[in-house]
Amino acid sequence: MNHRELETLLSDVAAGRLSTGSALERLRHFPVESLPFATIDHHRALRQGHPEVVFCAGKTAEQVTAICGRLVEADGGFLGTRATREHAAALEALHPRLVWHELARVVHLPPAEPVPPSGRILVISAGTSDLPVAEEAAVVAEAFGHRVDRLIDVGVAGLHRLLAARDQFADADVIIVVAGMEGALPSVVGGLVRQPVIAVPTSVGYGASFGGLAALLGMLNSCASGVLVVNIDNGFGAAAAASRILSR
Amino acid sequence: MNHRELETLLSDVAAGRLSTGSALERLRHFPVESLPFATIDHHRALRQGHPEVVFCAGKTAEQVTAICGRLVEADGGFLGTRATREHAAALEALHPRLVWHELARVVHLPPAEPVPPSGRILVISAGTSDLPVAEEAAVVAEAFGHRVDRLIDVGVAGLHRLLAARDQFADADVIIVVAGMEGALPSVVGGLVRQPVIAVPTSVGYGASFGGLAALLGMLNSCASGVLVVNIDNGFGAAAAASRILSR
Amino acid sequence: MNHRELETLLSDVAAGRLSTGSALERLRHFPVESLPFATIDHHRALRQGHPEVVFCAGKTAEQVTAICGRLVEADGGFLGTRATREHAAALEALHPRLVWHELARVVHLPPAEPVPPSGRILVISAGTSDLPVAEEAAVVAEAFGHRVDRLIDVGVAGLHRLLAARDQFADADVIIVVAGMEGALPSVVGGLVRQPVIAVPTSVGYGASFGGLAALLGMLNSCASGVLVVNIDNGFGAAAAASRILSR
Amino acid sequence: MNHRELETLLSDVAAGRLSTGSALERLRHFPVESLPFATIDHHRALRQGHPEVVFCAGKTAEQVTAICGRLVEADGGFLGTRATREHAAALEALHPRLVWHELARVVHLPPAEPVPPSGRILVISAGTSDLPVAEEAAVVAEAFGHRVDRLIDVGVAGLHRLLAARDQFADADVIIVVAGMEGALPSVVGGLVRQPVIAVPTSVGYGASFGGLAALLGMLNSCASGVLVVNIDNGFGAAAAASRILSR
Amino acid sequence: MNHRELETLLSDVAAGRLSTGSALERLRHFPVESLPFATIDHHRALRQGHPEVVFCAGKTAEQVTAICGRLVEADGGFLGTRATREHAAALEALHPRLVWHELARVVHLPPAEPVPPSGRILVISAGTSDLPVAEEAAVVAEAFGHRVDRLIDVGVAGLHRLLAARDQFADADVIIVVAGMEGALPSVVGGLVRQPVIAVPTSVGYGASFGGLAALLGMLNSCASGVLVVNIDNGFGAAAAASRILSR
Amino acid sequence: MNHRELETLLSDVAAGRLSTGSALERLRHFPVESLPFATIDHHRALRQGHPEVVFCAGKTAEQVTAICGRLVEADGGFLGTRATREHAAALEALHPRLVWHELARVVHLPPAEPVPPSGRILVISAGTSDLPVAEEAAVVAEAFGHRVDRLIDVGVAGLHRLLAARDQFADADVIIVVAGMEGALPSVVGGLVRQPVIAVPTSVGYGASFGGLAALLGMLNSCASGVLVVNIDNGFGAAAAASRILSR
Amino acid sequence: MNHRELETLLSDVAAGRLSTGSALERLRHFPVESLPFATIDHHRALRQGHPEVVFCAGKTAEQVTAICGRLVEADGGFLGTRATREHAAALEALHPRLVWHELARVVHLPPAEPVPPSGRILVISAGTSDLPVAEEAAVVAEAFGHRVDRLIDVGVAGLHRLLAARDQFADADVIIVVAGMEGALPSVVGGLVRQPVIAVPTSVGYGASFGGLAALLGMLNSCASGVLVVNIDNGFGAAAAASRILSR
Amino acid sequence: MNHRELETLLSDVAAGRLSTGSALERLRHFPVESLPFATIDHHRALRQGHPEVVFCAGKTAEQVTAICGRLVEADGGFLGTRATREHAAALEALHPRLVWHELARVVHLPPAEPVPPSGRILVISAGTSDLPVAEEAAVVAEAFGHRVDRLIDVGVAGLHRLLAARDQFADADVIIVVAGMEGALPSVVGGLVRQPVIAVPTSVGYGASFGGLAALLGMLNSCASGVLVVNIDNGFGAAAAASRILSR
Repeated sequence: MNHRELETLLSDVAAGRLSTGSALERLRHFPVESLPFATIDHHRALRQGHPEVVFCAGKTAEQVTAICGRLVEADGGFLGTRATREHAAALEALHPRLVWHELARVVHLPPAEPVPPSGRILVISAGTSDLPVAEEAAVVAEAFGHRVDRLIDVGVAGLHRLLAARDQFADADVIIVVAGMEGALPSVVGGLVRQPVIAVPTSVGYGASFGGLAALLGMLNSCASGVLVVNIDNGFGAAAAASRILSR
Repeated sequence: MNHRELETLLSDVAAGRLSTGSALERLRHFPVESLPFATIDHHRALRQGHPEVVFCAGKTAEQVTAICGRLVEADGGFLGTRATREHAAALEALHPRLVWHELARVVHLPPAEPVPPSGRILVISAGTSDLPVAEEAAVVAEAFGHRVDRLIDVGVAGLHRLLAARDQFADADVIIVVAGMEGALPSVVGGLVRQPVIAVPTSVGYGASFGGLAALLGMLNSCASGVLVVNIDNGFGAAAAASRILSR
Repeated sequence: MNHRELETLLSDVAAGRLSTGSALERLRHFPVESLPFATIDHHRALRQGHPEVVFCAGKTAEQVTAICGRLVEADGGFLGTRATREHAAALEALHPRLVWHELARVVHLPPAEPVPPSGRILVISAGTSDLPVAEEAAVVAEAFGHRVDRLIDVGVAGLHRLLAARDQFADADVIIVVAGMEGALPSVVGGLVRQPVIAVPTSVGYGASFGGLAALLGMLNSCASGVLVVNIDNGFGAAAAASRILSR
Repeated sequence: MNHRELETLLSDVAAGRLSTGSALERLRHFPVESLPFATIDHHRALRQGHPEVVFCAGKTAEQVTAICGRLVEADGGFLGTRATREHAAALEALHPRLVWHELARVVHLPPAEPVPPSGRILVISAGTSDLPVAEEAAVVAEAFGHRVDRLIDVGVAGLHRLLAARDQFADADVIIVVAGMEGALPSVVGGLVRQPVIAVPTSVGYGASFGGLAALLGMLNSCASGVLVVNIDNGFGAAAAASRILSR
Repeated sequence: MNHRELETLLSDVAAGRLSTGSALERLRHFPVESLPFATIDHHRALRQGHPEVVFCAGKTAEQVTAICGRLVEADGGFLGTRATREHAAALEALHPRLVWHELARVVHLPPAEPVPPSGRILVISAGTSDLPVAEEAAVVAEAFGHRVDRLIDVGVAGLHRLLAARDQFADADVIIVVAGMEGALPSVVGGLVRQPVIAVPTSVGYGASFGGLAALLGMLNSCASGVLVVNIDNGFGAAAAASRILSR
Repeated sequence: MNHRELETLLSDVAAGRLSTGSALERLRHFPVESLPFATIDHHRALRQGHPEVVFCAGKTAEQVTAICGRLVEADGGFLGTRATREHAAALEALHPRLVWHELARVVHLPPAEPVPPSGRILVISAGTSDLPVAEEAAVVAEAFGHRVDRLIDVGVAGLHRLLAARDQFADADVIIVVAGMEGALPSVVGGLVRQPVIAVPTSVGYGASFGGLAALLGMLNSCASGVLVVNIDNGFGAAAAASRILSR
Repeated sequence: MNHRELETLLSDVAAGRLSTGSALERLRHFPVESLPFATIDHHRALRQGHPEVVFCAGKTAEQVTAICGRLVEADGGFLGTRATREHAAALEALHPRLVWHELARVVHLPPAEPVPPSGRILVISAGTSDLPVAEEAAVVAEAFGHRVDRLIDVGVAGLHRLLAARDQFADADVIIVVAGMEGALPSVVGGLVRQPVIAVPTSVGYGASFGGLAALLGMLNSCASGVLVVNIDNGFGAAAAASRILSR
Repeated sequence: MNHRELETLLSDVAAGRLSTGSALERLRHFPVESLPFATIDHHRALRQGHPEVVFCAGKTAEQVTAICGRLVEADGGFLGTRATREHAAALEALHPRLVWHELARVVHLPPAEPVPPSGRILVISAGTSDLPVAEEAAVVAEAFGHRVDRLIDVGVAGLHRLLAARDQFADADVIIVVAGMEGALPSVVGGLVRQPVIAVPTSVGYGASFGGLAALLGMLNSCASGVLVVNIDNGFGAAAAASRILSR
């Protein structure tokens, strides 16, 4: 929405040709800013409940710092996923308040006045090697303003570990289950609880795991009804989905 | 939980060795009944918010009527998916109040006193051929006690149809998006709304759609953050997931 | 091993040029009989512990009755898998003692003097639709001379059903676990027991189950160590493997 | 076409045994030159509208400079794709007028007298990570003598960005749409315009994008009719196809 | 665009608040009509150069006749693909002028005053079994108002058949190449001509053709530059794409 | 090669402008005849050592009889593969000398004066279900003028059957090995002999055989060096390849 | 099982509310210990016959030494697979008795008083490149307390090598067969013996071996009945399965 | 065949219990030599027409030199494929007559008295990037004692290059065709010649070539009858197959 369009919109409202409600609706969808290599969407917070998140993989440190700089100006903070040590170092130099979650590969500059957390998410992971993805989900969910509990290394081959922790399930509003290999954990959890279950397959495994395909297919074919699935290794997506659920 | 176990549990409670809360928790997980060809789980309603649903495909009419008969005795009603005309005819003979949703392939015997609907689900479908899957989602969601709106034939190649209906989005608590072919509709819807979006790929298409694989991969790789996916043609799963979300 | 070879062998033994042990070893490997469309291996019982089993799928009723007739002459009985009603009818006409296991699609003409069963196999199946494959495993195992227990419809989404039956596990020498969809049941069972676990994926499922591929990959990637896998829907193979284990 | 063949052809024309038209037709198809590791086709410009393009990936700098040297002698310039920094450095040393498009991985030595551009191509890309492929398409199209406009970072999850730029569509003769992940952008663009749409899937994405397979399948199954597809990451192919369309 | 919106638009134009050009632009995108099972887009002709085409596969004869009836009222004719004999019979009863192309599986009710053909398309097919797909492309292209030439059974294993017909290539504005098995024909044609080449893989073949996958991959990897590909068996898509090219 | 081209060619020869050898070479490649649904290549015998073979699958009985009629006129006989009972009946009515190989699905009208056989091919098959493909190879090879020996039902799980028949290997010029399931037989045979081995994977199997893919991959990855592979179920292709080898 | 639970259990036993047998059963399933990045299962030996094995791949040397340190305290030793030189060096510094099997990538700290070996396993491998996987199986089996014989480089293309070693087969209780490429060796071995055969596909091969997929499919489709399969390159899994069989 | 076996065999012959012919036959199959990491087959030359070839990939320089040293002792020379510069350097130090074909990645120590070449092989390659695989085929064929001609860079998109070289085809006994991308070249060549055609798919390509899968499928589905296929990048296999054909 460029200057002329904004002018037209406002004069239409002034002239009674456009109601306040309609103007608000239109404004919600148009404010974007162009960099030479990216188009930033400053109003996503308005539209979707959280600001635009920068996917750092495949971007140079220069590109990431430029995009994040604009986000700071507009929104007072930013969140970046799949950030390398180089991304983090470049951003820390500019933004000393930056938090760098190394295992989760997440960079976060929280806004000056944080919002109190709403909603409670339980992140369950099957094995030690699934931790980076589970942490991405957990850290992003916290950045989006939710309270997060963690339950780790409770794969289905040692069922007693999971059953021993069943008390924790009741407190959660949403449960995110992260697993590689055969990806059976969401089926077991989904059969024990009535809350929404978001399954995240990971690329952990070897041989016929085919980069997470086995876990993905397992979760899509879960015999527990109503298990929801996101892309392989997509901890961010699980957190974003949980946040959509909690934003109701 | 057999008779002896139940006796023990109750005498433990009576003797103060077991609290009422603990007893309830244990009871929630154990009552099953065995037929020669199936093990029925009567307490699923207690545990998961809705009674056991019978997946009719691959079962004979005799098996289906036997299982549903037990469910009527225990729960007062039943719900069956992927039901053929033969299944429906056999069930109607025994249960005259049966509702047979032909397009959705669903049979439903609602309980005598239905619960007033809670939560509102919008089911969007991309093409005419996606309707059976969309209807399965809609009919199951209604049977689970939710209000359902429908928006049909609004594929992304005719964007104006979808944008013209945008007013309907705001009223929904959860949006289910059903699409075959390239499966792009959830990405577009997911970018327009902040509610939870559940994407259902369908096997509609030909050639390189590979039985719905193209739509499934498209939805898993959605560039809209937080889109959730269920199995191909799994309208039931989408409704069950939506019901988990609404049961909070 | 034709007549001349046999003559040579025997005269070699007679002349002391060949020990009895060596002669036995050689005899174990050579007796085959040729039909126009098949080469029958009468000494398999000697070599592998059970007689040649006829895979009936794709053979005409005439071919099956011809092959089985020869087996009766040589061995006194036969076993056939993937038999249709037509195969069974044709064989029953010739062999009134024939047993036709319809669900398992197995035909069996036991020898006149059956051997007392040795070893105990537990066959566990996840859902009602997995029963045909589970029964093929069970019926073949019984025909091979083993005692078989069955535990049905105990999928991982209703864990209490499985845990309630845990007492049965201890009695088994080998456990065969049959499951479709995500194929998670062998992982859970494998984590609970120390016996050999043979996992049989089934083609039960739809959409992204891809004809049993999801269950197969799930079982191959099981996080329970030492789970063994056979081909999709291969109940016969699981029974044959169990029999190899029990024949030690 | 070697010397003798050429002599024969010309003497045939001289003797009236061959018309000028037929001679031209034959000449159009035969002139090739052999290097030890390549067979160069100097008349491709005559036959296909643009000179042979060197695919540099997998060739040594020596091979590339040798091939390009011959092209310069015959055609006065050359174009190379998938060129590394090493290829570019070696070529720049020999041809100071060389242009090195780093992001697009293209080397270009334009002919001394460039042709004025004909036809107008709009290159649209979905995300920042798709830029290298989009630039390959754009730079090659410019080298082939067409005018190119660019529209970047307008993925379908932020539809307003794309719709805001709709004015640019009308001016284009051909639209090239570059997208990774679910590859939905060509469907949306294809539904909005009547011009030819060439879709280029990219390998951008992770997990179940399977190296661009998800985007490729999405584009092949587009619900917008008449969308055309080239290979994954094949910006060059899209430009070559657009040039075929514009050369009419 | 409902009645009220139309009223607003027109009064805006009347009041000078909206230019004629802008009004036309908006009108181009909104007119849709809803049936219970379909949303019809009457202005597609305006927007995309040809009216909405009905994909008959998977629709009942009743649904097809209802949709086509509305199209006749609005546009004076219709075009349907993948039509069975049943579809054709039902439509012929209502529309005696209907043309039923059996091999191509296309039904066509041309408008009363047909437009003179513009542009020339050559459809080349590799084998006799590819004819249904080639005819779908040819018949749809003719219905869209283009002149079509056909060249059949000229697979690459008999190169002389193709080379003998090379004279026909020069007259075409666009060449559609239809091939199954290894799908090599577009590469050979693409190397001989400078026009746009649209490749249509067919599901003709067996064994490792995997339903047309081999031909599809072959065409996507064509060594002839600028070959464009549509979905397997998608003759309609090729015609629609050719029409986009010719509509410039 | 139309009339005018032929005239030119002949007058060129007459005038000494073209040698007899060159004229012969050109004539070898051009004679084709067009039916409305096929282009017949009468000179294939000259060029490739055997006449054009009709692939009957997917063709109507009318199309097959029309094509074969023309072949009879030109060549005195024909050969057709994948022929159904209907094809055979229609052809027998017209050509009483027709031979119909039911198991091999081959129709053959040998020329009046058959050529004495040259070269010796051994066709080995692994199981009874592989017989149709093995017979297609054998019957086609006989029709092409070679002597064929058969060795059936000698799969690798009963190695003694194969080893017992090793004497037959030495007489063969080419060995064709037909196997489904894991496709291991060509590796074993290839390690025992020095002749050319042509491996034919069949679609025999179930579950993870994936329509012959397992056997195909097994044969392509054979640890016996120099094993050659044709498409799944392609008995004809194996015979044609053997014939190329024997025609030297 | 935390302190309170243990207390309750014991007081229940003391009070006669719980039998010793039941208490033992419950204790068998609950003792786990939590590190920040792992949950260790100390009672696995009780439950499954061998202690928890550490999968080192993807874990830092610090994580591995921390986990192994706890295992030493509880069990007196440990076993780790897929250990790099770095893992081994770090562990050797702490545990001088450590044995580092470089080719097998296994680290082993045997308990102070080793158990005499029980059961005999024969590990057969097809090629030199399969040795690392075969050694992983052999070394793990030895660590689990079994006697292991090895037979190497006996692929099916040189059948005489295998047949020459047939005497060794009779002594084995279980046979593990390791092979890459087409994975045919288990079929041949399975046909020669009556013992359990565990097939391990390896990722050895290139081209269409697709990372071991060809060998995996070959083994799953084995024509030898009762061949059991584990994941690609999963030597550990084969040893664990053999140990389950031998523990009966 | 160890010493005792040999003794027995010879004394049997001496005693007239074994004919010279039978003894020769047995000797042909048994002489193997064991290294700790390999089992060498010295009599392969006798059995298969050429000595054992060492596949160097994945072996250390030490392993390769040890194996080759034994081959030199027994056979007077050796041949190794997929040899790195390190392998070549280590072997050159020991065997100064070694020939190192860098592009083909082949090491060759020819025997002292080479055999005059027999048979003529034409190796055709489609593009510059296919040269390493084509050279592997050519160099191995030469080492096996055949004459080799080369025709390079004649892909089907520039048909005239191939047709111009057609004269070379007639001289060849066997034609090896090496191509990546869509792998169409063997179809075109196979249609032009009557000799055996061996197709070698290469992993040259990108995107949807999927590591050579596209070319492999293209060649298996060739519409030219009797085209034979080997594994992706398997130039050695093509040469070995050609040698089998020429050894008749």
